[in-house]
Amino acid sequence: MENENLLKQISFIKEIDKIKYIQRRTKLFNSDRNENDAEHSWHLAMMAIVLAEHANEPVDVLKVLKMVLIHDIVEIDAGDTFIYDTAKDHSNTDEELIAAKRIFGMLPKEQAEEFIAIWEEFEEGKTNEAKFARSMDRFEPLLQNTSNKGGTWAELNVDYQRVYDKKKVINEGSTSIWNYSENLLNECVDKGILKK
Amino acid sequence: MENENLLKQISFIKEIDKIKYIQRRTKLFNSDRNENDAEHSWHLAMMAIVLAEHANEPVDVLKVLKMVLIHDIVEIDAGDTFIYDTAKDHSNTDEELIAAKRIFGMLPKEQAEEFIAIWEEFEEGKTNEAKFARSMDRFEPLLQNTSNKGGTWAELNVDYQRVYDKKKVINEGSTSIWNYSENLLNECVDKGILKK
Ligand SMILES: [Ca+2]
Repeated sequence: MENENLLKQISFIKEIDKIKYIQRRTKLFNSDRNENDAEHSWHLAMMAIVLAEHANEPVDVLKVLKMVLIHDIVEIDAGDTFIYDTAKDHSNTDEELIAAKRIFGMLPKEQAEEFIAIWEEFEEGKTNEAKFARSMDRFEPLLQNTSNKGGTWAELNVDYQRVYDKKKVINEGSTSIWNYSENLLNECVDKGILKK
Repeated sequence: MENENLLKQISFIKEIDKIKYIQRRTKLFNSDRNENDAEHSWHLAMMAIVLAEHANEPVDVLKVLKMVLIHDIVEIDAGDTFIYDTAKDHSNTDEELIAAKRIFGMLPKEQAEEFIAIWEEFEEGKTNEAKFARSMDRFEPLLQNTSNKGGTWAELNVDYQRVYDKKKVINEGSTSIWNYSENLLNECVDKGILKK
């Protein structure tokens, strides 16, 4: 049984390597090189560890880490949906649920169920852990775009109000990080890298 | 105080982006594209979560995750030392300790101390968490090289015995993963992608 589990787990470990080829729209800090989903997930995990003290409610950091480490694995099948793409709903598409079942389903049954549940909890965004994890997911590209003279906002002509509306959920995870973010958005407007 | 911490933490979060540019010698699975340290660290974190049940002794998974997520950050200053490079000792060089103090030292004092201690614990490899984290760090490139017709072993003419000697510490973290690894190495010899 132990060995049967191990073989399934190793198949899964090989499969998720594909996340390293999924390019995000956002660029690395001070760079014009796109970030991929593995790099993004690593960075969110580091942010969650470092910034946990700023969560509005105490969070189970291990659960937050699981959320951010696995949240984009479904994109192996479903692809990255850009947050400012109006034609497609960003989260929890049917396609993503099918992907979650296929990819996490490679794991031993109990583990597969745990991973699907954690992914769904992240997508729903209702628990303290999900709120904090989602605030990390919004905060990283905000920092990146700011360091890249507007980055994807400038590139795709996204204005202040649309950025603000997408970013304000940071406040549900951490009011102090949201206060910092709001100031940063205002600075971007002042610098002319975000249109109001 | 909260805000002062936050500013330090954000500086650290920006600094560690540099890990995404550090190329390892090992290639992605079935690929000729080099892996970078952020991708590698993400993969080890996923492996630690998925494979924790195979640890020889029960481990604090959160601590293992912190170890694998931060273990290569020192390479921002010290660079990646290739494991089969005989000219340079692989781990815990003076250079790496200076790097740890500079980079983790960007964080608020208490957090900086925690990160340096976790990094040192990983490097020393004595606790259950460090043993298991280190076994993940050896197991990933073993799987990658196997999927790449010998990968860096073939490329750099590293023979079975040298690979075996470097990999056998996997056994300290997990005997079942070591048994699997030893079989895999023997298969590589049989296939002619690892010289005995
Ligand atoms: Ca995404």
